[in-house]
Amino acid sequence: MIRAWAAKEQGGALERYDYDPGPLPADEVEIAVETCGLCHSDVSLIDNEWFVSQYPLVPGHEVIGRVSEVGAHVTHLKIGDRVGVGWYAHSCLTCHTCMSGDHNMCSDAKGVAAAHQGRFGGFADKVRSQAAWAVKLPEGVDAAKAGPLFCGGITVFNPIVQNNIKPTDKVGVIGIGGLGHMAVKFLRAWGCEVTAFTSTEAKAEEARAMGAHRIVNSRDEAALKAERGRYDMVLSTVNVPLKWSRYIAALAPRGKLHMVGAVMDPMPVAAGMLMDNQRSVTGSSVGAPATIATMLDFCARHDITPQTEHLPMSKINEAIARLKKGDVRYRFVLEADFD
Amino acid sequence: MIRAWAAKEQGGALERYDYDPGPLPADEVEIAVETCGLCHSDVSLIDNEWFVSQYPLVPGHEVIGRVSEVGAHVTHLKIGDRVGVGWYAHSCLTCHTCMSGDHNMCSDAKGVAAAHQGRFGGFADKVRSQAAWAVKLPEGVDAAKAGPLFCGGITVFNPIVQNNIKPTDKVGVIGIGGLGHMAVKFLRAWGCEVTAFTSTEAKAEEARAMGAHRIVNSRDEAALKAERGRYDMVLSTVNVPLKWSRYIAALAPRGKLHMVGAVMDPMPVAAGMLMDNQRSVTGSSVGAPATIATMLDFCARHDITPQTEHLPMSKINEAIARLKKGDVRYRFVLEADFD
Repeated sequence: MIRAWAAKEQGGALERYDYDPGPLPADEVEIAVETCGLCHSDVSLIDNEWFVSQYPLVPGHEVIGRVSEVGAHVTHLKIGDRVGVGWYAHSCLTCHTCMSGDHNMCSDAKGVAAAHQGRFGGFADKVRSQAAWAVKLPEGVDAAKAGPLFCGGITVFNPIVQNNIKPTDKVGVIGIGGLGHMAVKFLRAWGCEVTAFTSTEAKAEEARAMGAHRIVNSRDEAALKAERGRYDMVLSTVNVPLKWSRYIAALAPRGKLHMVGAVMDPMPVAAGMLMDNQRSVTGSSVGAPATIATMLDFCARHDITPQTEHLPMSKINEAIARLKKGDVRYRFVLEADFD
Repeated sequence: MIRAWAAKEQGGALERYDYDPGPLPADEVEIAVETCGLCHSDVSLIDNEWFVSQYPLVPGHEVIGRVSEVGAHVTHLKIGDRVGVGWYAHSCLTCHTCMSGDHNMCSDAKGVAAAHQGRFGGFADKVRSQAAWAVKLPEGVDAAKAGPLFCGGITVFNPIVQNNIKPTDKVGVIGIGGLGHMAVKFLRAWGCEVTAFTSTEAKAEEARAMGAHRIVNSRDEAALKAERGRYDMVLSTVNVPLKWSRYIAALAPRGKLHMVGAVMDPMPVAAGMLMDNQRSVTGSSVGAPATIATMLDFCARHDITPQTEHLPMSKINEAIARLKKGDVRYRFVLEADFD
């Protein structure tokens, strides 16, 4: 039996829940969970915001742990390897998209915590993943804090790779929270000029400490206007509607407004503003296993770690309550404490 | 004196108008006009749709002619050279954007027919252009039909270059008109799978004859839905609002919806649909002189010509009236007939 924390109904508090995972599929590994980060998407799943959730639902998709069992066909991982698993724990591996290295866009991809796809997540003593989606932690990455790299981290690292961001580029980050603070650290190490857009006075100094060269108050209309034509990329990590035309206007020739926050209201985009400077509005979610591995190497070389607050996993409901209030700097990591 | 056709007030019929251009600036050439294509943008200028027009206004920005005078500092063109001039006739040449080869995005760029920027266009016996913006016609390009390449042509060629479209890509073209028909020809020669989206039954066969492999009726909701996930690029050449979400959904991983039609209503774009497949909505207008030259070489090698209807320039008002009704296959070229 796997011991876990589950929501038993929409919006429900997490309760202890044991389940029998059955025999381990040949292409999967089972991982003894050490830590699991807490992400806004966990709340979205618990609250059924995307209308797909089924219950009981075991959230948790920023898992770090050690391989405790390997499926019969797994060759590249062995018991004891320390790995991480993020949002996805499965893809078909054979479609054109997977074969092109874009596993995160596989139409058959399955979330590690997607109960409606028959999977249970990382707030548990053990979790399973297709071996292809369990990425080894390299030397030099602090395992205790690495969990949030696997969802929040890759979500903001992937756009840097996908958009061919260069060290000479100017990049803005909207929202200095769980995702945004990691974006600032990555981009600083990448060599870019980094601007943090934040409405939270208290975060301005913290963003500077993380590497932002410049701070723009996102509630200051005049300040936003003055950014016109500056950015090669503006990365939006928020999920609330903003005055997007201001950020599109802030793009330099060929600049991209890149969305990683699933803001629900459609964005009104004027074609003329895109034509004007060959601008784009684009987006992505998480990243493929190869990109995750690249990110981990980059983190090791540049000593990049998420800024985390740690709680025992048995305090998961406290962590969720605080996350909902925005009371976290900047990411919770829950440490497995099943007895 | 230069003899020209000018609108003397907003929406006015074109009338004969002579003007004294003054001494030729040192970095410009004067061109004896042979032909000038007629573009929707001419009508937009005449009708002051963009709220910038001043009158008298001499439209015409798809000019072919022979250099008749060269400015004192011009070294790469000589009297008698056959050149073309498109939308722009001037840029600063020194800003970072110009120096990067992106002259069409220079914030100081001036339209050849932009009366509000002190310039008069190509429906005239002579027209002037900064020498950098007058591009020589290579051997093998039919001068009589080449005018429309300089605005309509480059407008649809540039996205192929900018978006790194490959011969293995699948591309859709929305709207088979003055721009779209050239896009189909370019993309076919580029090696792509080409799909024409059109609501005009009569154009389906013509689009096939121009090189489209597939036709999709853009008014057929079920047919549009079935295109889901197919395209590396969908190029929209129309300037009316469509159900853009259908075309965004039709994009493959990393696919781009590229706008070259200045549709006025903001497009509602769902961030989630961009995140889903790393899709983009992007845009551009015309292209830089180097891209125009590349296009002309490509046209010569692949024997690509716009499909044109020819009228004497003195019938310019008749051409405008027919263009407004959409009664042209596919681009008017006006032949200078000043006596």
